[in-house]
Amino acid sequence: MTKDRTVSLSRTSALRGLPANHGHVIAVDIGGSNLRVALADRKGVILGRWVASTKRTSSPEMVVKQIRTGVNHLLEQAAVTHRSLLAVAAGAPGVTDRSAGVVFATSYLKGWKDVPLARLLASALQIPAVVENDVKLAAIGENWMGAARGVRDFVFLAIGTGIAAGLFVNGQLVHGPDWVAGEVGYMIVPGAPEMPVQRGTPGSLESVIGGEGVKEQWLSFSGKKHATASRDLTATGIFYHALAGDRRAKNVLERSARVLAYAIYNISAVLNSSLFVLGGGVGRNSTLIAATQQFLEPYTQPSRPKLMASALGQDAQLIGAIRLAQDVVESRVERTLPGR
Amino acid sequence: MTKDRTVSLSRTSALRGLPANHGHVIAVDIGGSNLRVALADRKGVILGRWVASTKRTSSPEMVVKQIRTGVNHLLEQAAVTHRSLLAVAAGAPGVTDRSAGVVFATSYLKGWKDVPLARLLASALQIPAVVENDVKLAAIGENWMGAARGVRDFVFLAIGTGIAAGLFVNGQLVHGPDWVAGEVGYMIVPGAPEMPVQRGTPGSLESVIGGEGVKEQWLSFSGKKHATASRDLTATGIFYHALAGDRRAKNVLERSARVLAYAIYNISAVLNSSLFVLGGGVGRNSTLIAATQQFLEPYTQPSRPKLMASALGQDAQLIGAIRLAQDVVESRVERTLPGR
Repeated sequence: MTKDRTVSLSRTSALRGLPANHGHVIAVDIGGSNLRVALADRKGVILGRWVASTKRTSSPEMVVKQIRTGVNHLLEQAAVTHRSLLAVAAGAPGVTDRSAGVVFATSYLKGWKDVPLARLLASALQIPAVVENDVKLAAIGENWMGAARGVRDFVFLAIGTGIAAGLFVNGQLVHGPDWVAGEVGYMIVPGAPEMPVQRGTPGSLESVIGGEGVKEQWLSFSGKKHATASRDLTATGIFYHALAGDRRAKNVLERSARVLAYAIYNISAVLNSSLFVLGGGVGRNSTLIAATQQFLEPYTQPSRPKLMASALGQDAQLIGAIRLAQDVVESRVERTLPGR
Repeated sequence: MTKDRTVSLSRTSALRGLPANHGHVIAVDIGGSNLRVALADRKGVILGRWVASTKRTSSPEMVVKQIRTGVNHLLEQAAVTHRSLLAVAAGAPGVTDRSAGVVFATSYLKGWKDVPLARLLASALQIPAVVENDVKLAAIGENWMGAARGVRDFVFLAIGTGIAAGLFVNGQLVHGPDWVAGEVGYMIVPGAPEMPVQRGTPGSLESVIGGEGVKEQWLSFSGKKHATASRDLTATGIFYHALAGDRRAKNVLERSARVLAYAIYNISAVLNSSLFVLGGGVGRNSTLIAATQQFLEPYTQPSRPKLMASALGQDAQLIGAIRLAQDVVESRVERTLPGR
């Protein structure tokens, strides 16, 4: 068990001959197409970034090897010694058991299954490691330095190809007994399909307001004649057309906002979250946020949810990883130590 | 502030000249029609119960006076001295700020508003007092001695005239920043109205599967001819007719189960709660629970919610109040002390 190998901050620092608040951490954001690595100091200042594609190197071992290459590159660029590295935190796009350091499953990266990512990273980099679901990391990031700074009860809602949420309740991130808390892409609301879905297929909410869902709405509203010409439009492009007055695009925006509003309203009725921070390519769209907030205006009972766009954008995960790595250094979370 | 007046367990016991685990607590369940008071020892054993009607005595002062009468009666019956009373915990059927000890609002008891119930109780009984929402108290009860004993993530879902939930997340009860977490009677799911509701009127989910909602379904399915004859049926009676084969009652059961299933599925998608404990006159109905669980069978992603009937039934609130009063004695929760 990782718990038995827990060491205190003072011991970690002492081991490396460093005074408190010195040293560095590594943050990693593993995405379906991109891998991003950052080197940060103990105040959270990013000293360097490194990006690579995960499209060809999808196996866990290859991704970890890429991460090591990135780390070496960053250390060299910033003239930081490996000795000053205190921890690494990595986000993965799938169901992740942070306590055990294992990525259970992901629909990206050619479908990782039960990957002991924390152990692989700790071993490759020879520093304590922790892994977390990417959307939960983004919630940590927004709570630390973003739109939900210091807010104890809020929801980070990521809407891109998929939909998921990072929930803060009583100031704590919620994981759930099976590590699938926040999988709100499966929610069933009026205007979304009611049928059960199988593992690996988009959830009900996702199928309507995920990136592909919005495009499918557009194609179905467009009819055959326009379908070919407009097939390449993204959700953002469609919402832009709505703003410009296109009637069919307006229909898509209206339905998307209504369905999203019901999902947010329901989450709010459950948790009484005072704030919803919207992230992801679709979620951050200001036209969608404004239309959704407007739809929610008369829904005042039991409390009116407030929507905001993510302040950190694509950096939310990476900044959350920096924070989580700091938490490892300060022994606030369980971590995996390098094996002997 | 109550916090400034917090005293430790040892001091409380010492003040009253009692060794640890000795002494007694008072539990109070204030309902829309009944007031129930219990005297319990420190192990949670109920030594006596007292019941009265709140139908005529709805003002806070009159209810507190009734409670004092009940307490005196119980002490006398059990031959327990007032000196051995260590704390009182009371549940109220409305939005309750446990920290401040105030009942903000309730649609029962002729609409209490901002009632400092903890202060009134502490002063009337001259012992530390705490107040809590009744459904949250029931969740505490089920977690302590009922169907969710020791379960860290579960939902107690009360369905009676109204609908509300008590949520345990990471082993902690969730209140929300405005004390309205768990007000799931407002959830909007397929088969329930989509319009916003005003304060004091039933929420969307309530209007379909609350006690009155089920009866209204029945009347609308029955048509004019049967309406008069079957007006007096309760939800339980209607579900009984469904079980007996009545086609119209089956329609009501089917719709109720479907709507309830969507609400439970959505809460489960948000929180990944492993267990839903159903309470309240409608919620405890085994026919409804079986039909709902059956409807949920194919909904396996991201996790399948498990339903159980409340084990404590109508005692859930009272037992939760006993536990909360114990927590007061052991200084685990904020409480209000009698004024000077």
